[in-house]
Amino acid sequence: MRIQVINPNTCIEMTHSIGESAKKVAAPTTEIIAVSPDHGVPSIEGHYDEAISALGTLQLIKEGRENQVDGHIIACFGDPALHAAREIADAPVIGIAEAAFHVATLVATKFSIVTTLSRTRIIAEHLLHEYGFVHKCSNIHCIDLPVLELESNTEETYQKLLEHCLKAKQQDNIGAIVLGCGGMAKLAERVAQEIDIPVIDGVTAAVKLLEGLHGLGLKTSKWGDYNYPIRK
Amino acid sequence: MRIQVINPNTCIEMTHSIGESAKKVAAPTTEIIAVSPDHGVPSIEGHYDEAISALGTLQLIKEGRENQVDGHIIACFGDPALHAAREIADAPVIGIAEAAFHVATLVATKFSIVTTLSRTRIIAEHLLHEYGFVHKCSNIHCIDLPVLELESNTEETYQKLLEHCLKAKQQDNIGAIVLGCGGMAKLAERVAQEIDIPVIDGVTAAVKLLEGLHGLGLKTSKWGDYNYPIRK
Amino acid sequence: MRIQVINPNTCIEMTHSIGESAKKVAAPTTEIIAVSPDHGVPSIEGHYDEAISALGTLQLIKEGRENQVDGHIIACFGDPALHAAREIADAPVIGIAEAAFHVATLVATKFSIVTTLSRTRIIAEHLLHEYGFVHKCSNIHCIDLPVLELESNTEETYQKLLEHCLKAKQQDNIGAIVLGCGGMAKLAERVAQEIDIPVIDGVTAAVKLLEGLHGLGLKTSKWGDYNYPIRK
Amino acid sequence: MRIQVINPNTCIEMTHSIGESAKKVAAPTTEIIAVSPDHGVPSIEGHYDEAISALGTLQLIKEGRENQVDGHIIACFGDPALHAAREIADAPVIGIAEAAFHVATLVATKFSIVTTLSRTRIIAEHLLHEYGFVHKCSNIHCIDLPVLELESNTEETYQKLLEHCLKAKQQDNIGAIVLGCGGMAKLAERVAQEIDIPVIDGVTAAVKLLEGLHGLGLKTSKWGDYNYPIRK
Amino acid sequence: MRIQVINPNTCIEMTHSIGESAKKVAAPTTEIIAVSPDHGVPSIEGHYDEAISALGTLQLIKEGRENQVDGHIIACFGDPALHAAREIADAPVIGIAEAAFHVATLVATKFSIVTTLSRTRIIAEHLLHEYGFVHKCSNIHCIDLPVLELESNTEETYQKLLEHCLKAKQQDNIGAIVLGCGGMAKLAERVAQEIDIPVIDGVTAAVKLLEGLHGLGLKTSKWGDYNYPIRK
Amino acid sequence: MRIQVINPNTCIEMTHSIGESAKKVAAPTTEIIAVSPDHGVPSIEGHYDEAISALGTLQLIKEGRENQVDGHIIACFGDPALHAAREIADAPVIGIAEAAFHVATLVATKFSIVTTLSRTRIIAEHLLHEYGFVHKCSNIHCIDLPVLELESNTEETYQKLLEHCLKAKQQDNIGAIVLGCGGMAKLAERVAQEIDIPVIDGVTAAVKLLEGLHGLGLKTSKWGDYNYPIRK
Repeated sequence: MRIQVINPNTCIEMTHSIGESAKKVAAPTTEIIAVSPDHGVPSIEGHYDEAISALGTLQLIKEGRENQVDGHIIACFGDPALHAAREIADAPVIGIAEAAFHVATLVATKFSIVTTLSRTRIIAEHLLHEYGFVHKCSNIHCIDLPVLELESNTEETYQKLLEHCLKAKQQDNIGAIVLGCGGMAKLAERVAQEIDIPVIDGVTAAVKLLEGLHGLGLKTSKWGDYNYPIRK
Repeated sequence: MRIQVINPNTCIEMTHSIGESAKKVAAPTTEIIAVSPDHGVPSIEGHYDEAISALGTLQLIKEGRENQVDGHIIACFGDPALHAAREIADAPVIGIAEAAFHVATLVATKFSIVTTLSRTRIIAEHLLHEYGFVHKCSNIHCIDLPVLELESNTEETYQKLLEHCLKAKQQDNIGAIVLGCGGMAKLAERVAQEIDIPVIDGVTAAVKLLEGLHGLGLKTSKWGDYNYPIRK
Repeated sequence: MRIQVINPNTCIEMTHSIGESAKKVAAPTTEIIAVSPDHGVPSIEGHYDEAISALGTLQLIKEGRENQVDGHIIACFGDPALHAAREIADAPVIGIAEAAFHVATLVATKFSIVTTLSRTRIIAEHLLHEYGFVHKCSNIHCIDLPVLELESNTEETYQKLLEHCLKAKQQDNIGAIVLGCGGMAKLAERVAQEIDIPVIDGVTAAVKLLEGLHGLGLKTSKWGDYNYPIRK
Repeated sequence: MRIQVINPNTCIEMTHSIGESAKKVAAPTTEIIAVSPDHGVPSIEGHYDEAISALGTLQLIKEGRENQVDGHIIACFGDPALHAAREIADAPVIGIAEAAFHVATLVATKFSIVTTLSRTRIIAEHLLHEYGFVHKCSNIHCIDLPVLELESNTEETYQKLLEHCLKAKQQDNIGAIVLGCGGMAKLAERVAQEIDIPVIDGVTAAVKLLEGLHGLGLKTSKWGDYNYPIRK
Repeated sequence: MRIQVINPNTCIEMTHSIGESAKKVAAPTTEIIAVSPDHGVPSIEGHYDEAISALGTLQLIKEGRENQVDGHIIACFGDPALHAAREIADAPVIGIAEAAFHVATLVATKFSIVTTLSRTRIIAEHLLHEYGFVHKCSNIHCIDLPVLELESNTEETYQKLLEHCLKAKQQDNIGAIVLGCGGMAKLAERVAQEIDIPVIDGVTAAVKLLEGLHGLGLKTSKWGDYNYPIRK
Repeated sequence: MRIQVINPNTCIEMTHSIGESAKKVAAPTTEIIAVSPDHGVPSIEGHYDEAISALGTLQLIKEGRENQVDGHIIACFGDPALHAAREIADAPVIGIAEAAFHVATLVATKFSIVTTLSRTRIIAEHLLHEYGFVHKCSNIHCIDLPVLELESNTEETYQKLLEHCLKAKQQDNIGAIVLGCGGMAKLAERVAQEIDIPVIDGVTAAVKLLEGLHGLGLKTSKWGDYNYPIRK
């Protein structure tokens, strides 16, 4: 099985680290192909960045199709262009936010999200609302460090992240924590060990969900709104 | 006051007809500037078309800013790139779906939507859910004619539209009908006269809402998630 | 165009100040007729006051009809008798709470309300729930000053209001503030300038929404539950 | 114990029949005092009638207080002036719509409503939404006979009612039926026997709920928004 | 009338105290039969305890049927086995959580819950969600004392309970408090007198609701999902 | 990896067929251990059957723990005893209803359920509501054949199932179908091939989700309400 992991921003270091995270959990028979667009935004920190990144993401989905990959991951916590990607792909496509939400509810009744910036909090709220997980999410914490700090200043980020995860654990009546950024994937394991509750990272979660769909022989439905775009 | 009306698809006829509809209701002191992107999709009939159209739409928003327009309308019923557009604009930006929903609830307790294709029904459902109008919308009817038929085959479209509007009026326990496509704007008045209940078209609704915001001195909030995109 | 602005309480000073606020934003061609009932309650500070004020409000709506005004505003934040008023009016009727909510969501993803008394908080909650804006409202702040203080002690009210608006801006993850009382209309502009985010007052918002509906040729639907009351 | 049963309309026959229904289920030690306003509307068939009836209803609540009754019932399915009545009463006040909804959910997972006019359907929808019973109500059926037909033409009404109750039983996946009009109280038992599922009438339900509250020593809370109206 | 009050845990002291609470409010003609299972768990403090207690509860329901009691109360705040019990009983069955929620909304617009353990908070949340009372409940407070402390250490429990009830009254914008444990029934009156707002205990509430259903001649619906279990 | 698949009813044929379905999709390195309780109900067709089956299910979970399995599946569409099982298990536990819902939303925006009996429809509705998938499920179809017919009369069941799946595909605006019974697992593939849209069976879905959680090193959270039951 071959999984295309798309980092929708142009930060190569993040693409690399997301790819490494994906590889860590992938089955021996699963090949991880981590990619990012040539053009776009170096980090996704708002609605505009998301909309712009959609184009590169969809271009990469098309390349993935040509390469006949068996599944696609959109590795940005806003799940940008997810519905659009499913229209042009026949293989399954999973966003890391939805992946993390689904998996979290399998091991805990409620979870909190720890994410990067306050201004992207609304994006997480919109997704929780659209996907139906509003009542499963107790709180959203923002460490208020730019996304790219996750690459350049890992240790400070880790300490901030840890601090907010501990607060969430103590105050939010939750059983698990969801990390709200693809760039946090590499820190998930370390945080989990330190705070001793399940910490869900969407990148790794998405890999295993895709392997699962592949094992079930399930592909994106081509009946209804996920059918291929209408040719004009 | 100058309002930029963006048709997110590349169909010039539709841009023209949307512009004409906007002009009909605009105040004498309001100038309507109807535009559409050079590149993109000729009609928006799904998630993919929407994502692609976002780029052209945002480019036009930027041009509008340079021209210092006083408000922007995104004239596609999926409100594509609405949040992103608000980030880069300081003038207000309104989507025609939200405009129609808001206006409909001011004259009726419930409304139904009559739109083009069954496959875009889910887009309307997502918007109703996100905006909070789920309980205000009684039903969604699809005439199942392609968007571009609205330009090339107006009479057949009108008859189909009329038939579905009548059914909605008789069966849905509603007080108003929302037309679910920018291309239907020119038919709104004729339908309304024939079926004798309020028929809301989002293009004209958005013009008047923008004029209202302008009169109130209100602009898109630059506090929070609609602030200008973070520079990297 | 002639708009009847109804202050549902009997406080003449408030009627005057609401009328002045309305005039400030009205188009040159719009005449504002500010009225209040002869009998009723001097301020509306609970469910009972609301129910009592309905009678005077509906009587004024009838007078407005006889005078053939082109729109009615119910200028109390509980939108008392709104549905009833729409039954007897053919011109559009708008409540200032709904007006403020609609307008706020056009310039920000979330808003907070700053209102007068804790005991009327539930009235705002009921309206948010009925209109569908629950997920758009982040918080409700109460300055806990009686409604009539807004007339007699404007400066202290202003300082209290300012303090709560600042708190809302800093803590609530919002982009706009809604003022929760007709008597606050005159303070909206001053507060907005000081705290530098959109501050929405329902009175002025309703004026512009009514002008918009008028421009669209839209009236209260007479199909369904807003039809004229059944004669017995 | 003394219970004041308020028929908010001026139809004496209905007041009488509602009183008789209440007496049928009242405990031997409970006195039923059925009253209706001198002025108001002969039947309540819309938002306007409801608003108008509130004044008479609240006047009667005040008289009930002077007579030191131990509980009040508002016997119109729209629960008009319920919150207002609770402000001025210290004894408990119950509306027949809420009474019926509460009781129905104690004997069935879901219920349907059979009511009079299509145009009042929205009133039931608003109450279900406000009270939290939206997911408990499967459907709302309207027999489309005027309220006063319930007094003047009982047999035809009964047949129409029966027909709709049977349809609801067969099609709605429900366990109980709620009758949506005070005037239907007298028909509840006959319908229930014929269709053999629980048929809930709000008048009788409210009597027993009030007796229950009385037995618990519970009165309307005077802490918060149900406290007595603020004196000016 | 004979009411079977089932304490789903095996703690005899609690069965006794629940029975005494029930008797205090029961009508003179109502006999209270307080029972608890021979086997099971001494206290119910989580999902597992609840599932285990279901078996004993259902066995007691069957015994109640053989004894032809006229109603059953499941006196644990999680309402364990409620739906199942209704299938095998023809007499009505009421859980104390639902009883308390229903009654609280008849005397106040919003309530808070004060319960025992933080870990059972989710059980209350699930019930509020299922029953439709999410928007009626302002907050859930946990005194974090084990259920059995309610029997062995009443005074400390009372002080803790009082402290949390006072906090709820002051901070939660509520009109009533719901006690979240059958073992708290005996403390309800004392707390209510001290904090002077309605304090609802589900045991006594359920007794009066059952007496009410009995007076209405209403039994658990045998049409639909509450019909007797299908024999195989 | 070893997965314990629990058929909560005592029908050995169904245990066998469920086990076979599980094996078909399990990874080569995954061992499937299909078990059912010695005592309980031969099929689960209502709330009571569910409650009774919980005991056997929890007993089997305990046995699974002693055998140190790496995951548990509760293979009945009502997910009986799911929360309780998670308290006593440290390995993950997944119900087949939740498994099917999660997987369906990864390949389609909306799905319909095709299940056995009308009377269990409410169980599916409760789960959709609790899990947050209400807006993702378009409709629930019941073939109204007893659960055990799935074993004894496979061909008739298949034809009925097919008929309802086709209807759902044509009428419900969906992209996928969820089969609402463990006994339908063996028919999923055949139905899917014939109707050519994704058909999700919860048994196979749960196997792959468990393998995924195992690969992620995720276990049921022991922080909060899923912690081991409190010892008394």
